[in-house]
Amino acid sequence: MKALAYQRAHPLEAFAIELVEVAEPVPRDADLVVEVGAVGVNPGETRVRRTRSADPGGRVVLGWELAGVVVAVGPAVSGFSVGDRVLGTGDPTRDGCWAERVAIDHRVVARVPDTLSLVDAASLPIGGVTAWEALFREGGALPAGVDRVLVVGGAGGVGSLATQLLATRTSATVICTASRPESQRWCTTMGADLVVDHGADVPAALRSAGIEHVDMVLSTAGTAANLAWIAPLLRPHGHLAAVDLDGPLDLGPLVLRSVSVHTEMVFNAVVHGEDPSAQGRILHELAADAAAGRLRPITTTRLQGLSAQSMRAAHQLLESRRTIGKVVIAT
Amino acid sequence: MKALAYQRAHPLEAFAIELVEVAEPVPRDADLVVEVGAVGVNPGETRVRRTRSADPGGRVVLGWELAGVVVAVGPAVSGFSVGDRVLGTGDPTRDGCWAERVAIDHRVVARVPDTLSLVDAASLPIGGVTAWEALFREGGALPAGVDRVLVVGGAGGVGSLATQLLATRTSATVICTASRPESQRWCTTMGADLVVDHGADVPAALRSAGIEHVDMVLSTAGTAANLAWIAPLLRPHGHLAAVDLDGPLDLGPLVLRSVSVHTEMVFNAVVHGEDPSAQGRILHELAADAAAGRLRPITTTRLQGLSAQSMRAAHQLLESRRTIGKVVIAT
Repeated sequence: MKALAYQRAHPLEAFAIELVEVAEPVPRDADLVVEVGAVGVNPGETRVRRTRSADPGGRVVLGWELAGVVVAVGPAVSGFSVGDRVLGTGDPTRDGCWAERVAIDHRVVARVPDTLSLVDAASLPIGGVTAWEALFREGGALPAGVDRVLVVGGAGGVGSLATQLLATRTSATVICTASRPESQRWCTTMGADLVVDHGADVPAALRSAGIEHVDMVLSTAGTAANLAWIAPLLRPHGHLAAVDLDGPLDLGPLVLRSVSVHTEMVFNAVVHGEDPSAQGRILHELAADAAAGRLRPITTTRLQGLSAQSMRAAHQLLESRRTIGKVVIAT
Repeated sequence: MKALAYQRAHPLEAFAIELVEVAEPVPRDADLVVEVGAVGVNPGETRVRRTRSADPGGRVVLGWELAGVVVAVGPAVSGFSVGDRVLGTGDPTRDGCWAERVAIDHRVVARVPDTLSLVDAASLPIGGVTAWEALFREGGALPAGVDRVLVVGGAGGVGSLATQLLATRTSATVICTASRPESQRWCTTMGADLVVDHGADVPAALRSAGIEHVDMVLSTAGTAANLAWIAPLLRPHGHLAAVDLDGPLDLGPLVLRSVSVHTEMVFNAVVHGEDPSAQGRILHELAADAAAGRLRPITTTRLQGLSAQSMRAAHQLLESRRTIGKVVIAT
């Protein structure tokens, strides 16, 4: 089958992902094999492309956000049949879904409702599960006492779905940051009660709206750099949920307010061999919300055909850091 | 009046805290003036002594854990009268309680039940409020989904009270680390279900007890150094509550499990001018628990008389890092 693959980590200017012939995926007992219909492309994948090389002689197939049709079902699978349309994430320690077919643990997928296109379905999994897990730490609800949430980067994939989840599933006041008029309008469409320019002085903008403190900040990018203004904006025992942390962070400013820092890495269960079924359940909820019109899919750029050209265009868009919503490639 | 004071930060070997004559405390409107009956001495105060000097010409009076008798009440105070026995914390930006009298915000104290001595009362405030706030982030309960908690440093002031709060106010399984036989026995007395040696391989000791993961670690000391074994011991979306963080921490190992890091600094509200009334309510609960026999005061070393000698002895004990329970000085 065909797949998009590369050998060595590389920058955008030397884009080297190519459509090549690879072996068919070999499913594990708990896997589905899915004929890929659409893939979402994520900032995290552009980072892997820039930093991770294959072992000598090998190749890397990225892509952990997909919608497609089940073509085979492993013996340990229940709840899915050949022909089912599914959406899901994946496992970054295995070959990804930038391919004609992919083997994927059935516990990290859910069925796509009939009314939802595969392209729209593919806009939900990574941003939706990440936002859900970052905000609703246990039991599908915000931490106790959280009534006002600031989403930093409200127009991105995680931010767009976080804003919608907050607006539709909680009673919290939702504030987004976004820098351009079109991204600010987008945040309002997603359900933000207030949108402020994150190119300017966010705490000053909030103060002029009568807001001195927030209970929670969901930070989708630039967390370490923004900590100097995020920390004092949080109330004592406030919450910082961040999806872009991966190394040292100076907790000093946060300790002064006894803040909780919620780290979030969407593949945390599947890469450790833990049961990732909770993610399948989250995806089921997201899909049901989308089918019921409570959650708007966030595909803003649809590219056609899984090719080096379409993938390069997707990476260019994502690395511009000006993407609104989601870039989806229909295969 | 007399107070224990020093001018320049100094190590234990050059101990320079002296009993000197200082002006009477000047209460603010919301303050009580308390005649100090007993003070708890804390590891945090030994750190301040080592690192913080007075402004030129000034002096530092430490001490933010006390029990005593109200001798004056400010005009904005309600709920307290002259003659009340109280226990409380304090405000590290003001003069502390290592003195005959101290001015203290009434919102960070509570009344001492008749059956509790001032020496026992003084063993509760800092460790009790710190443990409470670190464990029960909102609403006096553990985060949702936390059924198994490991207390690293179970025999110290925070650890002893955390263990008791967990044992008496939650249904969680409580595991403590302690290195010596006497500190291990102490943890059992505090209510630990299991005690393991933190000088040895803690994860291996837990595995041999059939425990692969815990939901929460409360770390009272050495958090950064212990992170390499703490992180993999936590389940996905587990909780690390730490009371000794003050600077950079490598969140990398925690992100891999999407862990929440709960920072805790007991003075977070009062030093920022936020309403610290929640702490008065916690102290009230702790005092009521102690009066009802549900919470055992943790005074293990009682020193007599507020003097340079007794304070030096307290600091020596604390800096040995082998203290069990609490060192209290009766004035």
